[in-house]
Amino acid sequence: MTVNERVSALRVLMKKNGLSAYIIRGTDPHASEYMAPHWMEMSWITGFLGESGTAVVTMDQALLWTDSRYYLQAGEELKGSEYKLMRESDVDCPTIAEWLLSTFNFQLSTKIGVNPEMYSIDGYRLLQTELEDGGLRLMSIDLIAPIWTEGRPDIPMNPLYIYEDCYAGERVGAKLERVRDMLSAHRCDALVIAELDEIGWLLNIRGTDVDYTPCVIAYCVVEKTRCTLFVDSRKVCDADAAVLRGKGVELMPYHAVFDYLKNISATRVMMDGNRVNEALYECVLSSVSHAACKVVTPSPLQVMMSVKNDIELAGTRLAMRQDAVALTRFFRWLETEALQSPQTEITLADRLHAYRAMGTHFTDESFGTIAGWNANGAIVHYAAKPESCAAITGNGVLLLDSGGQYLDGTTDITRTVWVGDEKAIPAQLKRDFTLVLKGHIALARARFPKGTRGNQLDVLAHQFMWAEGVTYGHGTGHGVGHFMGCHEGPANIRTDNNTNPIHLGNVFSDEPGIYRAGEYGIRTENLIATRQAAPSPRSTGETYYEFETLTLCFYDKRLMEFSMLTPDEVAWINDYHAWVEREVTPLLNEDEAAYLHTKCLPI
Amino acid sequence: MTVNERVSALRVLMKKNGLSAYIIRGTDPHASEYMAPHWMEMSWITGFLGESGTAVVTMDQALLWTDSRYYLQAGEELKGSEYKLMRESDVDCPTIAEWLLSTFNFQLSTKIGVNPEMYSIDGYRLLQTELEDGGLRLMSIDLIAPIWTEGRPDIPMNPLYIYEDCYAGERVGAKLERVRDMLSAHRCDALVIAELDEIGWLLNIRGTDVDYTPCVIAYCVVEKTRCTLFVDSRKVCDADAAVLRGKGVELMPYHAVFDYLKNISATRVMMDGNRVNEALYECVLSSVSHAACKVVTPSPLQVMMSVKNDIELAGTRLAMRQDAVALTRFFRWLETEALQSPQTEITLADRLHAYRAMGTHFTDESFGTIAGWNANGAIVHYAAKPESCAAITGNGVLLLDSGGQYLDGTTDITRTVWVGDEKAIPAQLKRDFTLVLKGHIALARARFPKGTRGNQLDVLAHQFMWAEGVTYGHGTGHGVGHFMGCHEGPANIRTDNNTNPIHLGNVFSDEPGIYRAGEYGIRTENLIATRQAAPSPRSTGETYYEFETLTLCFYDKRLMEFSMLTPDEVAWINDYHAWVEREVTPLLNEDEAAYLHTKCLPI
Repeated sequence: MTVNERVSALRVLMKKNGLSAYIIRGTDPHASEYMAPHWMEMSWITGFLGESGTAVVTMDQALLWTDSRYYLQAGEELKGSEYKLMRESDVDCPTIAEWLLSTFNFQLSTKIGVNPEMYSIDGYRLLQTELEDGGLRLMSIDLIAPIWTEGRPDIPMNPLYIYEDCYAGERVGAKLERVRDMLSAHRCDALVIAELDEIGWLLNIRGTDVDYTPCVIAYCVVEKTRCTLFVDSRKVCDADAAVLRGKGVELMPYHAVFDYLKNISATRVMMDGNRVNEALYECVLSSVSHAACKVVTPSPLQVMMSVKNDIELAGTRLAMRQDAVALTRFFRWLETEALQSPQTEITLADRLHAYRAMGTHFTDESFGTIAGWNANGAIVHYAAKPESCAAITGNGVLLLDSGGQYLDGTTDITRTVWVGDEKAIPAQLKRDFTLVLKGHIALARARFPKGTRGNQLDVLAHQFMWAEGVTYGHGTGHGVGHFMGCHEGPANIRTDNNTNPIHLGNVFSDEPGIYRAGEYGIRTENLIATRQAAPSPRSTGETYYEFETLTLCFYDKRLMEFSMLTPDEVAWINDYHAWVEREVTPLLNEDEAAYLHTKCLPI
Repeated sequence: MTVNERVSALRVLMKKNGLSAYIIRGTDPHASEYMAPHWMEMSWITGFLGESGTAVVTMDQALLWTDSRYYLQAGEELKGSEYKLMRESDVDCPTIAEWLLSTFNFQLSTKIGVNPEMYSIDGYRLLQTELEDGGLRLMSIDLIAPIWTEGRPDIPMNPLYIYEDCYAGERVGAKLERVRDMLSAHRCDALVIAELDEIGWLLNIRGTDVDYTPCVIAYCVVEKTRCTLFVDSRKVCDADAAVLRGKGVELMPYHAVFDYLKNISATRVMMDGNRVNEALYECVLSSVSHAACKVVTPSPLQVMMSVKNDIELAGTRLAMRQDAVALTRFFRWLETEALQSPQTEITLADRLHAYRAMGTHFTDESFGTIAGWNANGAIVHYAAKPESCAAITGNGVLLLDSGGQYLDGTTDITRTVWVGDEKAIPAQLKRDFTLVLKGHIALARARFPKGTRGNQLDVLAHQFMWAEGVTYGHGTGHGVGHFMGCHEGPANIRTDNNTNPIHLGNVFSDEPGIYRAGEYGIRTENLIATRQAAPSPRSTGETYYEFETLTLCFYDKRLMEFSMLTPDEVAWINDYHAWVEREVTPLLNEDEAAYLHTKCLPI
């Protein structure tokens, strides 16, 4: 079947169902960051393989919305199909709702179809409101399953495993008790969970169903006296099933969740508006009233998960040491041996993966390594491809953003280093590197009262570069899961509005950057954990928080413009480097230790 | 009539109307900061004269909610009445909704009465939702007017006057055109305005109906081809009425607005949810449907008003020079002559008022001067009273927060100065003063991209004191009107969540502080205006904003701990002082200029 044939097959079903348009989204029912191929409906119907896009098919048009990262790729991959590319990063590009409204304006019988599993409750309701404002009606219906019958990959069927309490730091029973207390406090008696990280965290289970995030494809419903995990029975060995039952977790088939919710006898059901899909919500609505649904964004479960306990934090510190050994070995290799043979961005990433894989408890990378050489470093979501990646030759700057999943924690680190003749480092590069570093340090050193939000602190990382009219388009810090998703909410450190305060135990990245298109990219990233600050003798009594730096890897001093650093900043860097050397040296051989020592010498 | 007799009279009417409780708020129908006595219903029914409070009367209880600023005063003034004080700043104090819900829990016939003129649309709807969640019903009814018949002050009846275009900088016609364009863009064709500052700004009228803010008591409705000012005809002389009519403004009686809205024939009516009262909204709802009301918070009008035009900013710079002369004279008098005779906080404030009153275009103070000597300075909303104010004796620190209304602009400034023997200044006081000053300077020097919100910048002012575990309970910066309210929205610089970005032409205060209860208060405040930053040679192209400092008054160098200041901060202070001296000296006599010169000598 060609893409155009698929579109034609869809139109037959649209006509049969009286639909004027059908929307196909590049998401899955679990609001996942990394999707299993089974759910790549958007790619199947368009031929576009990028990670972010939404297709709209009408009786005489087919369109694909995607952002500027994918313009080039989409242009190539849509060739030969009837799809028109909608460049959603362009200011004059209409949103899907705007386009539908102008195309079908006030034709009151117009029905737009979507698969409700592919929309969050909030996303669906927002679209519905926008469309109804112009007289259009949204209809929940899956028209892809009936036509994508041949060659559709199965839902991943990898076994789950129990994540031991010694890593998780809290028993399932204790977590369930806290969740039930939380539900009572909100006058609710049931919680529907669709997001895989949340399920993994709550039930202390992990798996290998998707790349980078060790989660298990499942749904979960917590009630007053029951907790049900909806998961394919082939994924659970008898021993693990018994363990889960022993913890009060009943097992039911994955797809049984829909019927289960249609018959749920709860007084008030809590669901996360951003993480639970509309299909589940519609099932709940068929058994309880609107008023008996508490749709919250974010759900308190997300907040609970984001607060790492002492065992999790201790585990992360261990994982950081493993990561530090890999990084130290990698950078030593890069400086001393690597360039004796041809290297590319991909061979560097592979080498780093190999060093990481030697680490205790390493299971996987926590995301695809970004290795950007010179101009490629300026492409924020750059992913090197074998046929087009850059060769590492001559002088230049390497941006390396990578991370590991270790049984005891998740890491994420970016370092920008100079490769080649130190004398060739341009002054502007040093200035930019130092502006980034100053912001990175200012955030790491922040002290702030309980209740502070990340968007209040963000300016600390931006202030120095803003003074020179330079900024970056990504967030300053994202939450990081514990042996789980490398990006988690609900708090973060960004300029965007976000009402979620920073909690004790939250782990964030601290990653300002500067990107000069066609020249180079700079980013410096550590992970930091939120802890209570020691009381100050002059304090007027509030509770203050501060960050503990978790990541253990030197910064490239060759790229620093020392004259731009204050004495406080120099002292911070020297202290950090002394700590890195102290912590990592015992895990290195003599040559590696000597290398690290020179890298950590005080300024 | 005693307070208890008033409460009894209210209960008779409550019974007649089937109400279980009645709420009386300390607000007016215009969401005013300074209220005319006519609307002081809460004070009349309770005997409590504080500016902030809400009374609840049931058949057998009478309660007054107020915050910690007024605990003492309320305790005194409620004596002898049946009122119970509800201390709303205490963590365990229920909100009014919580108290009503627990008192009348699920008695489905319970009706709670309120005067809808005293609630904003948003406030009313929020209370309604909270009460309905527990089965209670809110009923709009004014039960105070029928019983407060004797001795009730009239609505102020002072004449309005035309605010000349040479001060306003934009003709009424041009403003109305912009408002109508804005309405069209929102698919609306009518705008209801209740807030007096907004009416004064839009129609270029001013008055003297309330203290401190030169506004006129009125309502206004803007439609596609009509603009109606609802104002008592006795306030408008024939000449001004003709001027207004010439600008396309029709006049109708103040109270006619209610009937007018009941019969409005608009397609879609815009109202500010926080500034338009529920009574007006209910009138609109009787002529158009819910869907035909666009309740927005804030209304685009507020944003338009907050963007000062070039004439307004030029006027403010002139007003600042007048203010600077008064402040220089005052501080010189304080240092050289004042203490030769007995002085109190009040005599100082009076003297400052007298100096200001000598200034060109001065009309009034922009708020009641806060003069806090030593421990009184630590009381954030301190208002000295003749019977209890402090005498200025010995060594100490004076916090002086004051401002003026000038025809060409509004000022607001706080300086904290040492009085007495310089050698007696405690080290902690200097440290605190310098932490405040460093934050004040960091905000003044901020540079940030277009679209930035004030809560992103707030940490710049807080960062140095937070590092020592010290903070302040008030906002860092409020918007300031132009010859209008000294506090305006919608943008501000606070820790609170606020989605409104900073616009070019916004004027804010920059006023961090530190308060040591029982010892002293420190606050340092300038007004700053938002302007476009000059393009930086290294910029990657975004539009950057920065602040222009407007206020012209030296900081007390005796209170600075120079060792805590960076070279950049010292340079900023020296530049500021040089500019103050340059701008103000031409307006001073020789002695005053010599005094200012010593105060502005470089560090």
